[in-house]
Amino acid sequence: MLRLKSSDPDFARTFARLVKDRRESDPDIARDVQTIIDDVRLRGDEALAEYTERFDGHLPADDGWRIPAEDCREAFENLAPDLRAALELAAQRIRDYHRAQLPEDRDYTDEAGLRLGAKWRAVDGAGLYVPGGRAAYPSSLLMNAIPAKVAGVERLVVTTPTPKGVVNPLVLAAAHLAGVDEIWRVGGAQAVAALAHGTRRIRPVDVITGPGNAWVAEAKRQLYGVVGIDMVAGPSEILVIADGKNDPVWIAADLLSQAEHDPLAQSILITDDAAFADQVADAVGVEIAMLPTAKVAKASWDAYGTIIVVDSLDEAPALANALAAEHVEIATDDPDAIFAGIRHAGSVFLGRHTPEAIGDYVAGPNHVLPTGRRARFASGLSVLDFMKRTSFIAVPESALGAVGPAAIALADAEGLAAHARSIELRLGL
Amino acid sequence: MLRLKSSDPDFARTFARLVKDRRESDPDIARDVQTIIDDVRLRGDEALAEYTERFDGHLPADDGWRIPAEDCREAFENLAPDLRAALELAAQRIRDYHRAQLPEDRDYTDEAGLRLGAKWRAVDGAGLYVPGGRAAYPSSLLMNAIPAKVAGVERLVVTTPTPKGVVNPLVLAAAHLAGVDEIWRVGGAQAVAALAHGTRRIRPVDVITGPGNAWVAEAKRQLYGVVGIDMVAGPSEILVIADGKNDPVWIAADLLSQAEHDPLAQSILITDDAAFADQVADAVGVEIAMLPTAKVAKASWDAYGTIIVVDSLDEAPALANALAAEHVEIATDDPDAIFAGIRHAGSVFLGRHTPEAIGDYVAGPNHVLPTGRRARFASGLSVLDFMKRTSFIAVPESALGAVGPAAIALADAEGLAAHARSIELRLGL
Repeated sequence: MLRLKSSDPDFARTFARLVKDRRESDPDIARDVQTIIDDVRLRGDEALAEYTERFDGHLPADDGWRIPAEDCREAFENLAPDLRAALELAAQRIRDYHRAQLPEDRDYTDEAGLRLGAKWRAVDGAGLYVPGGRAAYPSSLLMNAIPAKVAGVERLVVTTPTPKGVVNPLVLAAAHLAGVDEIWRVGGAQAVAALAHGTRRIRPVDVITGPGNAWVAEAKRQLYGVVGIDMVAGPSEILVIADGKNDPVWIAADLLSQAEHDPLAQSILITDDAAFADQVADAVGVEIAMLPTAKVAKASWDAYGTIIVVDSLDEAPALANALAAEHVEIATDDPDAIFAGIRHAGSVFLGRHTPEAIGDYVAGPNHVLPTGRRARFASGLSVLDFMKRTSFIAVPESALGAVGPAAIALADAEGLAAHARSIELRLGL
Repeated sequence: MLRLKSSDPDFARTFARLVKDRRESDPDIARDVQTIIDDVRLRGDEALAEYTERFDGHLPADDGWRIPAEDCREAFENLAPDLRAALELAAQRIRDYHRAQLPEDRDYTDEAGLRLGAKWRAVDGAGLYVPGGRAAYPSSLLMNAIPAKVAGVERLVVTTPTPKGVVNPLVLAAAHLAGVDEIWRVGGAQAVAALAHGTRRIRPVDVITGPGNAWVAEAKRQLYGVVGIDMVAGPSEILVIADGKNDPVWIAADLLSQAEHDPLAQSILITDDAAFADQVADAVGVEIAMLPTAKVAKASWDAYGTIIVVDSLDEAPALANALAAEHVEIATDDPDAIFAGIRHAGSVFLGRHTPEAIGDYVAGPNHVLPTGRRARFASGLSVLDFMKRTSFIAVPESALGAVGPAAIALADAEGLAAHARSIELRLGL
């Protein structure tokens, strides 16, 4: 854990290093991923089978690659009642929040007489990557699948690794609840390549979303342009801005809720109370010991955990903007005062009773958020990631005279004679 | 030029090849571009200087890299009056169309008592690539710069190559009109790398947009994730859907207005009238001969031009959706009937008096559009490319009981103990 004070003479330099510190990207991964993508593109299902056997330790039978819809329904029906109710509440709240994101079409005629507009349509097919193993989260499935379905995507394909052949019944249950159309037992960069380029078994999709490990993230990055992707995802991070009036144990739990995700996750506390900082640091130590996820949480906290003591929380927005964190918690009496100064963040959690974990599951806004300072330019997942806009223009004969000559002048200036000619002909010039 | 009939027995196969045909992507380019990016990241301005000298044939003096704002104002003031008026009309219409794209923030309290919402903010800095040489288009500058400024971007940086040191006064004039903040004499992959990673002279930006050659497009693709980008851009294409009642010369001019952009551009005509198809083919031959851009247009038309004769224009939407073309012209009496069936297109031009060139300059909608079948999942440039959304959640103490237990159940099911604990503590569990 790193401890900083904003009044220290070399704080600016140390903080800049913290901001620049990238917990991702390995050139060896990039090469490996490219090899896998090329291989899947050329050899299709054969390559998929080899990689699945190698990385997941099992090889499905020819007819065992796709998990039947029946298995998903069964998994859903076999859920414990409280868990089923929890999933249903989450799905309903996510659906409600994302429905309001649906963009409106435009179609109007302007003063010059031109009809202009734009219409939004869903992509035909979307692929959702659902991690296996440590990170096989039904909540991630809901957060990806529901916006796609709300957007109107007709073919929703999930790929998920099933190490040693073991499926996660919770993921299947969530897939049933969200209305996923296909689920395939394949993971890693090879799954992303199959979704993008298609194989004989798996038809290609137009957009691929969903979190994954470094290989998955790199595969999405490399295939961007062949398909749309949500965002390059890296390890998670949380920034907690808290005054000394919080319960240090609550704040410690919040920091650890990020740390327990991934040894590369980062938890940062900014506080204006040095004694409170000590209490939180102590509480983290106590809390970690009680966690079944202690090993991961401790690795993350030891390597990347950071506590910054500032003279005043007025300093917090500027620091938060430089960090552009995925999650920002503001645990003060008037969180909006600080929030007003925050320009770059994936999602913000306001007030002492809004732990980030609420947003992971049931609040409604998406938990797929930009990491690694990408909140400077990127947004959380939304229905827009599964839609695209077609603009349109209609010029009635009577209106061409109002805008045509200007277009001709510009086309001539750019040396594009056929552009000019296509308008001149219609104006009888 | 390729000529197809949809009733031919092997049409499906030939058309599938047309759809799959990629006029881009060269693995050698990818490697070259990666070398350039790495070099600029490590050696900064020194590398920029070397590449600029090598590719643009000139080396600016230390204080000559940035083009002064004064030069831009002067270029604007020296424009011929009709050209100045044309640029101003274009800028105004682009501004009007894009202003209506500004998204609304959300902030509401739902039935469960949770306050939820999202706020949109512009990125801090945007970089606009403006091609030099053959494609030094002031219209491109307006189409990129105006949405950025409408979005609220405070620092708008243009990079543009100035081969042999020659600047394009029209580009400078457009930069003045659009309110660009910095213009640098640098192009190619090296300019994109400088914008993304920053150098001592050029501070980094958060988003890079703008068209460019294959090197620029590949550099943007590789740097996606370090910065946001608009879209991977490839060679342009137009699909004209026209019945036999059009003037074949008009349609020929429209096809050539795409072909004259780039030897790799593609122009496709779909018509239900075989005699009209012949007339258009003949007219293309006649028109090409008159064009100062004949060499480029002929190369494109010979290599990629395609005429598809269908039995009925009812077949057109399905073919158009498979092609997912950047530009689609519908030259019929009732273009909306065909448009209703089109799901995938960058921009659509409705009616006999709406040549695509109108949209390139003065209509208002953006002319930076997805190419190479990417309209399946991507949209034209908009203010959203320069903005990002921060979601937020505030749970009052009184509302945590309504959603907290469901979140705890899900966290437990996912094995994330600290997530559950952060909520349990607040609920006194």
